Amino acid sequence: MQNLNLSSLKKLEIILGGEYQSFATDLLDRAGVKGYTIVHNLSGKGSHGFREGHLMFNEDDVLIMVIAAVPEDMVEPILEGFEPFFNKHSGVVFVSDIQVSRLVKFSDQG
Amino acid sequence: MQNLNLSSLKKLEIILGGEYQSFATDLLDRAGVKGYTIVHNLSGKGSHGFREGHLMFNEDDVLIMVIAAVPEDMVEPILEGFEPFFNKHSGVVFVSDIQVSRLVKFSDQG
Amino acid sequence: MQNLNLSSLKKLEIILGGEYQSFATDLLDRAGVKGYTIVHNLSGKGSHGFREGHLMFNEDDVLIMVIAAVPEDMVEPILEGFEPFFNKHSGVVFVSDIQVSRLVKFSDQG
Repeated sequence: MQNLNLSSLKKLEIILGGEYQSFATDLLDRAGVKGYTIVHNLSGKGSHGFREGHLMFNEDDVLIMVIAAVPEDMVEPILEGFEPFFNKHSGVVFVSDIQVSRLVKFSDQG
Repeated sequence: MQNLNLSSLKKLEIILGGEYQSFATDLLDRAGVKGYTIVHNLSGKGSHGFREGHLMFNEDDVLIMVIAAVPEDMVEPILEGFEPFFNKHSGVVFVSDIQVSRLVKFSDQG
Repeated sequence: MQNLNLSSLKKLEIILGGEYQSFATDLLDRAGVKGYTIVHNLSGKGSHGFREGHLMFNEDDVLIMVIAAVPEDMVEPILEGFEPFFNKHSGVVFVSDIQVSRLVKFSDQG
């Protein structure tokens, strides 16, 4: 797959209240994340599989999911950056393995 | 990553007709799933990579994706719970590995 | 998990400008992809973690994410098919491992 230039990265899916969108994207910007995609108008309920059992969202909240693909060594500082926020506010971060096609707009002269 | 408390879970992405949202969330509730997030107003077509070739969605359907993070041992009973529904109705369930940050609203005294 | 019939597939998440939806789905159709789901009205910024640093989306673009589950041997031809497009237009393709429940509408006589 010589031409595909797939890179192994970590996908972060950050689900939080829509009113905190700029907090999340500012944090990603400061962490050096080069891009992200946002899915709007999610709904949700509960605590995403955790045993604590306290509600984290209720059905009237309007949530967003911020999706970013980052090198593995950026995962820890980003999650640590979100920790104080999530100590006060509802939300969840999913981390998973992905490969990303290396997309360049201009031909690669390398 | 001592402070991150990442847990390995399975992500379920359940895509089905939007009119069956409460069926899906009721099934998850009864299975003991603590939370989920719903992406609304998806469109779709076809049978998601299966060889049978029959259409499962057409382009006018309004679909939702219900996302839940569950312990591995809950995957089988949940999929079995959906099986009779999917014998009659269109849809698909994606299962993938994720790590989830353990979000607690109050400081961890442990 | 005899009844679950989980198949290991690759999930493609193709993020691109909404005006190119039919380009993307036509390419998938011609590649033999049997189905896909589309998330609409995404927003995004940047280049999704790549070092080149040029902006690929700006905050006013309306993006879509086309999700398809395909056998592994279809990933390379599909990515190659998108390559000329992404040489000119912004976007990204995420590739990840998933298992998919084999959903059949009629009872399995096998």
